[in-house]
Amino acid sequence: MAFVDRLECSRCGDSLQADRLANTCPKCESPLLVRYDLHEIKRNLKKTDLLDRPSDMWRYLEVLPVLSEQEIVSLGEGFTALLPLHRLGQDSGFSRLYLKDEALNPTGSFKARGLSAAVSMARKLGAEQLCIPTAGNAGGALAAYAARAGVAAHVFMPRDTPQANYFETLVAGAQVVQVDGLISDAARLMQEQMRQNQWFDCSTLKEPYRIEGKKTMGLELAEQFGWTLPDVIVYPTGGGTGLIGMWKAFQELDGLGWIDSQRPRMVSVQASGCAPIVKAFHEGADTSQFWEGAATFSSGLRVPKALGDFLILSALRESQGTAVAVSDEETYQAILEVGAREGIFLCPEGATCWAAVKKLRKEGWLSPDQSIVLFNTGAGHKYLDSIRQFEETRGGKARAGLEA
Amino acid sequence: MAFVDRLECSRCGDSLQADRLANTCPKCESPLLVRYDLHEIKRNLKKTDLLDRPSDMWRYLEVLPVLSEQEIVSLGEGFTALLPLHRLGQDSGFSRLYLKDEALNPTGSFKARGLSAAVSMARKLGAEQLCIPTAGNAGGALAAYAARAGVAAHVFMPRDTPQANYFETLVAGAQVVQVDGLISDAARLMQEQMRQNQWFDCSTLKEPYRIEGKKTMGLELAEQFGWTLPDVIVYPTGGGTGLIGMWKAFQELDGLGWIDSQRPRMVSVQASGCAPIVKAFHEGADTSQFWEGAATFSSGLRVPKALGDFLILSALRESQGTAVAVSDEETYQAILEVGAREGIFLCPEGATCWAAVKKLRKEGWLSPDQSIVLFNTGAGHKYLDSIRQFEETRGGKARAGLEA
Repeated sequence: MAFVDRLECSRCGDSLQADRLANTCPKCESPLLVRYDLHEIKRNLKKTDLLDRPSDMWRYLEVLPVLSEQEIVSLGEGFTALLPLHRLGQDSGFSRLYLKDEALNPTGSFKARGLSAAVSMARKLGAEQLCIPTAGNAGGALAAYAARAGVAAHVFMPRDTPQANYFETLVAGAQVVQVDGLISDAARLMQEQMRQNQWFDCSTLKEPYRIEGKKTMGLELAEQFGWTLPDVIVYPTGGGTGLIGMWKAFQELDGLGWIDSQRPRMVSVQASGCAPIVKAFHEGADTSQFWEGAATFSSGLRVPKALGDFLILSALRESQGTAVAVSDEETYQAILEVGAREGIFLCPEGATCWAAVKKLRKEGWLSPDQSIVLFNTGAGHKYLDSIRQFEETRGGKARAGLEA
Repeated sequence: MAFVDRLECSRCGDSLQADRLANTCPKCESPLLVRYDLHEIKRNLKKTDLLDRPSDMWRYLEVLPVLSEQEIVSLGEGFTALLPLHRLGQDSGFSRLYLKDEALNPTGSFKARGLSAAVSMARKLGAEQLCIPTAGNAGGALAAYAARAGVAAHVFMPRDTPQANYFETLVAGAQVVQVDGLISDAARLMQEQMRQNQWFDCSTLKEPYRIEGKKTMGLELAEQFGWTLPDVIVYPTGGGTGLIGMWKAFQELDGLGWIDSQRPRMVSVQASGCAPIVKAFHEGADTSQFWEGAATFSSGLRVPKALGDFLILSALRESQGTAVAVSDEETYQAILEVGAREGIFLCPEGATCWAAVKKLRKEGWLSPDQSIVLFNTGAGHKYLDSIRQFEETRGGKARAGLEA
């Protein structure tokens, strides 16, 4: 094991050794990425080696940062189902529509992957107090993995974060601070206390390992498609670590010679009440601007400014992808539609993907024969209060009883 | 494929052909069990064949009732993580303590397994309208798999069932009837409408295939322990299908020669507010009596009388197991303890297992070196309202903020 070569700044390219706790690049404060000795991995790992590996994300141990199985802090994250959506596909004329269902993760969310990797590495490198600002699920996941690892967690979340996130964080024994405002306000408050107490910052892309966990979504897609990739990936984008991570995974798999140079078109979906990436993409900008007054019931998408915005935008463009904003009403309808047709209770963030696919189909951007993967990033039942609140605001009744 | 030999009555032993829709035994109204041609399976299946099978419960296709992959109605159920509980084990002196985490299933509950199998077979055999009385998660799972299969579902649940179950059932487009009373009252009301409308009854053990889905928990345990079995299995028991199913799975694996004759001691855990199996077990009875005034916040355990009680009791005795009742307060404390020590947000039913293990340890029934598996049957975040309500009833504050 141990094929990590170095940490590399995603902007200025500067290198750092990976043997100690690190946050962002000391020179330019941009996200650090883990670089592997792919040549050496290629000599040591064959696809068939995976056959008797555990059915979780740690099956890809050689391209992950930990040295040994003992270092892994795991709750069984990853290797989630890739579900064909036959009925929804038939309705809308797609023959190869799939859902990667991340609700099947511990804590009911894709955040488990990133925090499993981050907490494993933080503990290994000596951190004892971890902190995070969160739009919801990341806080729950940090609390869970910190408890599992026996280290302390301090979670800062907006007061109107879904109750499930608040509860799960408390149940895992973390300190929870509820903040009036958005994740950006939570981050500001956290940073003051972090400096005073010497906590380790686990914010998205402010440490190099959450992205390593998230990239396993890309590794799994490749394996599940028989070491090819789908034509299009549609991904709900808050902080965007998953999208950046998958893009990195594809480069690494290509470097290993496990896939060819064909890449999926990457599509970022955001809520029209908070769409900084969509705006920047269509304006041709390289970075996004802080989105004032962010508001959407897709709580995970209430991220006014992503630290890795330039990496997201670059992946969208390199892949000839696009970015789409959908309204909360469209998202709500998508929850009901996918529920009734496929029996899957999407989280609002996941539902934005189906709303976006319908738009892109209408515009002719997507064609019926393409293989398309939507991401459901979490379990719908973690969002009962947000959905109910949206129904109240909305007034109408989409469906008898659902507002009860 | 197609190694099903017949359906066999679990009480009178009568045989039926498996080629048409069936409920209970036409002669004595007891549950029907699927019997396989194990000799033929033995010739056709090797353990190594499983290596490249999908990582869900359908990897065991030969010992399951469907004929082909096309017949399977799946949302990615099963092959859930078996998590070692090192920290909790150290606290309490157990060296081999494990949790089988069924929260990692679609719909966030172990009910997905049984309903995946039942809906697959019901659709195959021509049913178009399915109905179920439910204490909660089974209704959500039936609704989900029915939507996925394109058949209708009618779900009857107590009005005080957790909101997550009500919501998920509606989102999947099922008809939901809320009933003042318990699952037994819901069942009575359902039966009237069922007869009028010719719906197919998917109640626990009133059709033969839910148990086939549930038994995969036993198949997985055997595979995950390297084709041996743990010393003790601790299982929260409402309808008890999972326990009966695992016991059946072990017999079948023995018949295939994949495991030896050693069996785990099976432990049924119930809530002290509804403990008919515990009572019957300690009174030496072969069947249970209807439990009057059932009340517990472990909603899945509010089953006053299980149709398969005699099968549960017989498995407990054959295995030299036992039955334990725990109070809601003990269950609540177990949720907090497992949350803080292992980062896992257990559902109340799952938490009863940890409360029971502590009791059995104190009594000397369990010893430190035994391998012990607890079952967490669902995701804690589906129970926010039940937990909050329990905290209110209770008055006290176990932990700052958790009552918010």
